[in-house]
Amino acid sequence: MNPVLVEVLRGSAVESRHAGALAIVDASGAVHTALGDVDQPIFPRSAVKLLQALPLVASGAAETFGLNDAELALACASHSGEPEHVATAAGVLAKLGLTANALECGTQWPSREPVLRGMVARGELATPLHNNCSGKHAGFICVACHMAIGARNAGTEPAAFARGYVAAEHPVMREVSAALSAATGIDVEKAPRGTDGCSIPTFALPLRALALAFARCGSGQGLSDANARAARRLRQAVAVAPFMVGGTDRFDTRVMQAYGERVFCKIGAEGVYCAALPELGLGIALKIDDGAVRAAEAAFAAVAQALLKTEDELLRGYSHLQLRNWRGIDVGSLRPAQALSQALAP
Amino acid sequence: MNPVLVEVLRGSAVESRHAGALAIVDASGAVHTALGDVDQPIFPRSAVKLLQALPLVASGAAETFGLNDAELALACASHSGEPEHVATAAGVLAKLGLTANALECGTQWPSREPVLRGMVARGELATPLHNNCSGKHAGFICVACHMAIGARNAGTEPAAFARGYVAAEHPVMREVSAALSAATGIDVEKAPRGTDGCSIPTFALPLRALALAFARCGSGQGLSDANARAARRLRQAVAVAPFMVGGTDRFDTRVMQAYGERVFCKIGAEGVYCAALPELGLGIALKIDDGAVRAAEAAFAAVAQALLKTEDELLRGYSHLQLRNWRGIDVGSLRPAQALSQALAP
Repeated sequence: MNPVLVEVLRGSAVESRHAGALAIVDASGAVHTALGDVDQPIFPRSAVKLLQALPLVASGAAETFGLNDAELALACASHSGEPEHVATAAGVLAKLGLTANALECGTQWPSREPVLRGMVARGELATPLHNNCSGKHAGFICVACHMAIGARNAGTEPAAFARGYVAAEHPVMREVSAALSAATGIDVEKAPRGTDGCSIPTFALPLRALALAFARCGSGQGLSDANARAARRLRQAVAVAPFMVGGTDRFDTRVMQAYGERVFCKIGAEGVYCAALPELGLGIALKIDDGAVRAAEAAFAAVAQALLKTEDELLRGYSHLQLRNWRGIDVGSLRPAQALSQALAP
Repeated sequence: MNPVLVEVLRGSAVESRHAGALAIVDASGAVHTALGDVDQPIFPRSAVKLLQALPLVASGAAETFGLNDAELALACASHSGEPEHVATAAGVLAKLGLTANALECGTQWPSREPVLRGMVARGELATPLHNNCSGKHAGFICVACHMAIGARNAGTEPAAFARGYVAAEHPVMREVSAALSAATGIDVEKAPRGTDGCSIPTFALPLRALALAFARCGSGQGLSDANARAARRLRQAVAVAPFMVGGTDRFDTRVMQAYGERVFCKIGAEGVYCAALPELGLGIALKIDDGAVRAAEAAFAAVAQALLKTEDELLRGYSHLQLRNWRGIDVGSLRPAQALSQALAP
């Protein structure tokens, strides 16, 4: 059993508890902090979009198609489906001569409630461009088109070559798997496999290996030159365009708006968080056992405060999130549990 | 630490785990099943709306104002804010000569997505009548008005008397607390207290005592005659009008549509479930430690299948809920964990 990382208070009593595990390591694999079982494989889901985007840059596809900072940041995003996200994803596809029809992520309504309501009020329908993964998928299609116009695939029509890119055996997804393997040091082809929300494969990997991958992405150490350059380029792009990686009032966006290149952080479904703190040479990976987003954000906010030695109100607002009821009355709050606070104590 | 009750699979690997505790007892307090810590106080939240509605019937208020089955069922509800729920809550207030202005539950948009979207498309705004607790609150106001027109409060204007009914020290809430104390056998005034989503007090009580209260409500044993009759009347009303207690596609509604008076069951926020199975003389109370609704429903569905000795597809559909992604692809499922299956084995 993993320790409780985050508690939910109602009044002064603990109402709910979120257990989980946390790994903080450096690029050599040396463990800074390990709490809970950091060797148990977990599905990182969207928390590894930075790793999945490495081939986009490392292959030269991003350069070939002239992707800008916003477009690269969107390739690492779980965005809220706001107009800027939709337009940017459409723009990437337009650079390939393609449309939303090429996306294989499925249709999802924007998670940003006012945007959704505006669409409903105007009688608009959601499209695959609104899917939180549309930027990542547009990036995959860039890689496919770049492969298709490469020497080996001469004669193949790019859009036809891209089709089916979500399948594990497609050349694009093989490149993505190879990047994951290279960064984590684990052959993901041998890892437990599931299908992600956006239909690509997701591989279960230990938190220790995920934290290592992010330490490597923050420092470049332990990566090939091409992947090290790609990681740096993607982190810089996200620092320039943090809105693209999440959206209005989203935790990842707010943290990276505040910290720029000092922090790269990314939520994943089912309570996963991965991050790099380049100035400290550390990578971070955590999983809330029960999959709760609120606890993943609170735990990472506590980790970031401790490692960056800051009393920053933004981070504290998440680690000690105030809970209000329908009348706006304060009814409780989140807080880091003792095991987490002790593990992070100086 | 409580045992894992429900697992979430992605592919064939466990992605997330929900720990919790479960108490099944009879009206004498004899334990049928206890899993995890059933003596640790937990906030039951909306899972005890049946108990909170006892004074509405026991006091004679429901009879005085001529409340029908649908209106009584709505008093026990966490409804989805559908038009029938809103109209029924407004109807109760109209019987008192009052409007939505009397409600102190706060404004909440309907949880039923198509209803919300319809309102947005028509430019309508949510009101306190859409709050999932509006029926319970209309019931509280009935009790207040009934008290005000009673001999002791002669001369008091009912609406003025009702004002502030959500406060713990208001005569209505004192009656509600007394009903909770009588049913659970615990003096709730001495229990840890929080403020609920709808602004009334919520008291932390052991699962063992909550299960006892529901066993008593199912059998009438251990309750005063007035509360026993009230519990029976409310259970019958919910069996006649199960749509009112939840709504379209809601678990509680579907179960009680299928089982009628054989099952009374009610979800509460933060992963709580309470139920009575009158034919077996049993009360059930469970809490998922992390507060997840999906796990509370799955766990209760597993309990109901085991106790009722049924292979019913409706219940199995929740205990083994299929998870689909944005393209409708099966990506995983819920399942009862070993500790729960073993505890429920014949």
